[in-house]
Amino acid sequence: MNDLSRMLAHSIVTSQAASVGPETSKEAHRALVNYIGCALGGADHPAMDITFDALGGFSGPGAAGVIGRPEKVDVPFAALLNGLSSHIHDFDDTTPSNYIHPTSPVASALFAWAAATPVSGRDFLHAFALGFDTVTRIGDATYPNHYKAGWHSTSSIGVFGAAVAIGKLMGLNEQQMLWAIGLAATQASGLRDNFGSMAKGFHPGHAARCGIEAACLARAGFTTGTTPLEGPRGFAAVTSGGLLDAANFTDGLGTSYRFEGNTYKPYPCGIVIHPTIEVCSTFHDEGLVPDKIKAVEVKVAPLVRDLCDLRPSSGLQGKFSIYHAAAIGLVRGQGRLSEFTDEAVSDPRIAAMRDKVTAVADSTVGEDSVRVIITMDDGQKIEKFLGASLGNLVRPLSDAQLDEKFLNQVGVVSGDQARKVLERCWAIGDMKNVGDLVQACVTG
Amino acid sequence: MNDLSRMLAHSIVTSQAASVGPETSKEAHRALVNYIGCALGGADHPAMDITFDALGGFSGPGAAGVIGRPEKVDVPFAALLNGLSSHIHDFDDTTPSNYIHPTSPVASALFAWAAATPVSGRDFLHAFALGFDTVTRIGDATYPNHYKAGWHSTSSIGVFGAAVAIGKLMGLNEQQMLWAIGLAATQASGLRDNFGSMAKGFHPGHAARCGIEAACLARAGFTTGTTPLEGPRGFAAVTSGGLLDAANFTDGLGTSYRFEGNTYKPYPCGIVIHPTIEVCSTFHDEGLVPDKIKAVEVKVAPLVRDLCDLRPSSGLQGKFSIYHAAAIGLVRGQGRLSEFTDEAVSDPRIAAMRDKVTAVADSTVGEDSVRVIITMDDGQKIEKFLGASLGNLVRPLSDAQLDEKFLNQVGVVSGDQARKVLERCWAIGDMKNVGDLVQACVTG
Repeated sequence: MNDLSRMLAHSIVTSQAASVGPETSKEAHRALVNYIGCALGGADHPAMDITFDALGGFSGPGAAGVIGRPEKVDVPFAALLNGLSSHIHDFDDTTPSNYIHPTSPVASALFAWAAATPVSGRDFLHAFALGFDTVTRIGDATYPNHYKAGWHSTSSIGVFGAAVAIGKLMGLNEQQMLWAIGLAATQASGLRDNFGSMAKGFHPGHAARCGIEAACLARAGFTTGTTPLEGPRGFAAVTSGGLLDAANFTDGLGTSYRFEGNTYKPYPCGIVIHPTIEVCSTFHDEGLVPDKIKAVEVKVAPLVRDLCDLRPSSGLQGKFSIYHAAAIGLVRGQGRLSEFTDEAVSDPRIAAMRDKVTAVADSTVGEDSVRVIITMDDGQKIEKFLGASLGNLVRPLSDAQLDEKFLNQVGVVSGDQARKVLERCWAIGDMKNVGDLVQACVTG
Repeated sequence: MNDLSRMLAHSIVTSQAASVGPETSKEAHRALVNYIGCALGGADHPAMDITFDALGGFSGPGAAGVIGRPEKVDVPFAALLNGLSSHIHDFDDTTPSNYIHPTSPVASALFAWAAATPVSGRDFLHAFALGFDTVTRIGDATYPNHYKAGWHSTSSIGVFGAAVAIGKLMGLNEQQMLWAIGLAATQASGLRDNFGSMAKGFHPGHAARCGIEAACLARAGFTTGTTPLEGPRGFAAVTSGGLLDAANFTDGLGTSYRFEGNTYKPYPCGIVIHPTIEVCSTFHDEGLVPDKIKAVEVKVAPLVRDLCDLRPSSGLQGKFSIYHAAAIGLVRGQGRLSEFTDEAVSDPRIAAMRDKVTAVADSTVGEDSVRVIITMDDGQKIEKFLGASLGNLVRPLSDAQLDEKFLNQVGVVSGDQARKVLERCWAIGDMKNVGDLVQACVTG
């Protein structure tokens, strides 16, 4: 199909807020609750201070507050910072159909925009739903080629969602929206070589910022090619080996929003090592003594081993280490933020346990499953299999669990402020001005 | 070779200014003369005003002048604007070994930096040579895969040159330089779908800006992966089908600079249609009457037809139209800026002539050659073949021709100012502070 980009532009431009039904609204609220918690949780990460040090001097007039921070900066820079904080702990949401973290790039742009420009909750939610849906459609239509090629699709595809969401709030016309999509496509970037480093967190922030600037340039009349998604030198041809499944992309375009495949993480790390943490934590809770374990064999899907075959030397690398996942479960019975710090990675008991772990790619094991086989010093073997871990589509986090996750990670604000923010997040669709929520998330 | 990124970082960090010999210095000066002329020539293009309208409000404190403009803006934004102006007319230099325009992304970052921070001509020239060389090495080592995939490599590879050049001026250490390369890699972007639109000009500006920010972040300690160029999920694997010719990349790394393959354009358009303009202008000068021409057949290399098979409706599209190239040569005998305006593209005589032109891919014709066969109304056939057009490596523009090109396009400054700037460009390596040159290029 040689007009997908224009179809997308048309669909976004003509969409009405009433198209966001109750189910979409509900799931969008869950995604935003989870997002704000993660952004607050990452707001004091060293990568944030480094970014302020490096780029703060270039910021324009301080129009926008940043979630969890005292500084006010220009809108695109605020988007970059929101994106970084919300993804740096790898605790944000995931759509397993394409392994994208769809909310971070879109919501980071939107909250930065709303911090400086009045936006009603209804319009905000509509723009968010459109941005999220766009990311998910492009992600689904180019999966697995795009991701397997080595793109960090949260960034390289997230940028489209940020651009159309902001473009919608601006009221771009169809031609302008097409240019915004073109400018998003031509800034699409982000390499998986950076998994385990700060640059992974930079990616959705960069996407959010580029998306905002794409919409701004398009509104002002900056022209692009006409086939950014589907052209012979467009996004899919260049980055996804030409894969752009038009039937998948257009299925329900303009009438439904793809929120039903979103998941929320109980552990702040790569989603594919969640089953390992859960199973190993169960061993721990059952009283298995770490010192008496001789060897741990973890059987996972090939993709999981490919993604998480890291022997970590930093907390950020620990988030992509199947060995670390097994070790923290067995030694601590937990997978909290404090299990993914530099200190936890260098904890001698955890490091010793990691050395006992081997990972085997097994194509009979699902990507959300794991089989763990423990050999004790006395030769005894114990085995557990987990089909789907907590947070998975078939075992979703409840609203109460999302609340708990939120409150457990938002230490940059006081308990009272945290509960107030949480309450507002659950009612964002009814807000008169979403800027008030950002204001409530600002510190200092 | 699994340590190319670190080798590059090491080479840049340890390089001494004395390594820039007289031949490199000479060609670097020619490149910078050509660059400043192009940046002044594009400074009043509508795309520049649009970009100011769109993004000017986000600019930080006005530390940096912009070439050919009255505004002062933050350094990364100045880099974006310099990149846009210097490339928007497609008049900047080209290395035919990889079809990159290497100077624009590198020099745009450097002049923005020098506008705000004192830099000696010697250090500036050294950093420029390193940036140019880095772009050319990565370009050569990934050609043709990277370019043929559909990347606008001036942007997607240019970003590396900007990052290492600015990183060199900052005095980054090897670890920081590796991070700068990592942050460049992960922002690498730019799709050929945009050829013929303003977004093509945006690309080197975006690369320049991203390169500056990569260096700033790296200096502050922002971490990345360790194998941004050569890793299994690094730049070459993800964008170039894994092609990264290590022998090519490392040949002379640290001891010589790849300036010998650079060329300068006599016509402001895609380089591969230059032979067509030249041949058709010769027909015109020999008195061939356009109205008596029945048909024009242009035989070009397959790449040329692939790149320039556009029936244009704007001046920017005309720059990538083999049909327009033939038409302006035959009708006007010229290929100046005024042949690539919207007006020229809609000129009825030129439009009528374009309709008579067909282009045939012929693999026996070189990419810098053309065979033009004219059929007159009376049935007479005339044929000309050109092996290499003016500006080509074997027919380089002389210094005097570069001066003429410079003075012909810098209308945003007065004649006196233009000659003063030109003189300074030729002596940039001896300047105490390159910021003085930017100051001389500022208008208003």
